[in-house]
Amino acid sequence: MRYFAELRYNGESYCGWQRQNDAPTVQQTIEKALSTLLREDITTVGAGRTDTGVNAAYYVLHFDTTEPLPDCNWLVSKLNALLPPDIAFFSVQAVSDEAHARFDAVEREYRYRIELHKNPFVRSSWYYHAPLDVEQMNRAAALLLNYEDFTSFAKLNSNNKTNICHITKAEWRRENDTLWFTIRANRFLRNMVRSIVGTLVDVGRGRYTPDDFERIVAARDLSLSSGGAPAQGLFLWDVTYPDTIFVRKAK
Amino acid sequence: MRYFAELRYNGESYCGWQRQNDAPTVQQTIEKALSTLLREDITTVGAGRTDTGVNAAYYVLHFDTTEPLPDCNWLVSKLNALLPPDIAFFSVQAVSDEAHARFDAVEREYRYRIELHKNPFVRSSWYYHAPLDVEQMNRAAALLLNYEDFTSFAKLNSNNKTNICHITKAEWRRENDTLWFTIRANRFLRNMVRSIVGTLVDVGRGRYTPDDFERIVAARDLSLSSGGAPAQGLFLWDVTYPDTIFVRKAK
Repeated sequence: MRYFAELRYNGESYCGWQRQNDAPTVQQTIEKALSTLLREDITTVGAGRTDTGVNAAYYVLHFDTTEPLPDCNWLVSKLNALLPPDIAFFSVQAVSDEAHARFDAVEREYRYRIELHKNPFVRSSWYYHAPLDVEQMNRAAALLLNYEDFTSFAKLNSNNKTNICHITKAEWRRENDTLWFTIRANRFLRNMVRSIVGTLVDVGRGRYTPDDFERIVAARDLSLSSGGAPAQGLFLWDVTYPDTIFVRKAK
Repeated sequence: MRYFAELRYNGESYCGWQRQNDAPTVQQTIEKALSTLLREDITTVGAGRTDTGVNAAYYVLHFDTTEPLPDCNWLVSKLNALLPPDIAFFSVQAVSDEAHARFDAVEREYRYRIELHKNPFVRSSWYYHAPLDVEQMNRAAALLLNYEDFTSFAKLNSNNKTNICHITKAEWRRENDTLWFTIRANRFLRNMVRSIVGTLVDVGRGRYTPDDFERIVAARDLSLSSGGAPAQGLFLWDVTYPDTIFVRKAK
């Protein structure tokens, strides 16, 4: 039987999502807990990889069991008790055997958090001390929707066959002392959001104009974009599936 | 010259506010930074002590310098750069030589945070898994305003001359998956808020009725109250001074 699970995790203490031999990752922490509770070796397939230190406010994975689970709510409650405080499950539900947490996702949303003042109670954020012109950052961000090749924000030597992404939203919003960047697309390249955020922050502090930013996007040249923004401010925020595959229970 | 400073701190990594010989505390961390920046030995007097692991969303201290400070904003900015991420200053301002951060405070507010579901992004909270009857907890909390001797929630062997406190507010409020307890009084006894919260949670889970709770308060007997709620959920939230002493700049 195949199951989809909804969860969230704080990436601060993990070397990203994906299983590694010699470093703690979210995937192997979860697989260990699932295997213990279900008394068989469980392998998970996640909606996407997140890098070291990156968070997921919402995440979906699938896994297979040899026998149907008698009680999915029991499993959620046991997982939450067994897993450390930085990983929390919302739901586990049966799906068709062909449903796939990665390939069936049609849209993903990331958010990036910047704190403009030092805040002792917020760790998952980039504390950025200098003034930022949010209007200019939004003018530049809006230009992303006119392009589809994001080679300028891709990671060198990545295995992508194509750097084409369809971005449907890219905007900054200020809430008191917090700046949130929201970006939605059908897919994202590795390192893409942090590289876009880093370059947009360079617009906000006056190093680039929105026109400069557009030239960087259009050039399809990785060497022009700014350094990536720090991992701890980045959240995978949402993953969307067709209703025929899976219906969200969380939130 | 005497100065008042407004600040906040996350108590997670500290053995409380007060200076100790062999353990890291908020007071000595701040005094070290002030002494470095002002090039003289600075001693601070805080609005109150917080215990190991307890947070301050708002805190006030005073200190004296031999010479007037040429620029208080410069000092705030340097302090925030020098101090670790878990301590943040809002303001430093000159006051009269008689103003006193502890003795002149006329009211204090504490809040206590309980998370009803596991939340990987909130550490400064008590994660409480079992159901709680918030209405019953509020019925019991309201009874606190009819009493003024809180010996039942005092710490044994404390040096207080009196256990009399004038509580002006005590109530629970639910916001989504978070329960906030707010309590205001002219003064608090050591351990009092955590002990009240622990006993009110025992009302919420059905161990005590509000009538039982009232009997515990009225008995003035420490042995009747429940164990204290964990430190990480507690915040000193507000300290009030007469306008003649000091005018708040933060918030």
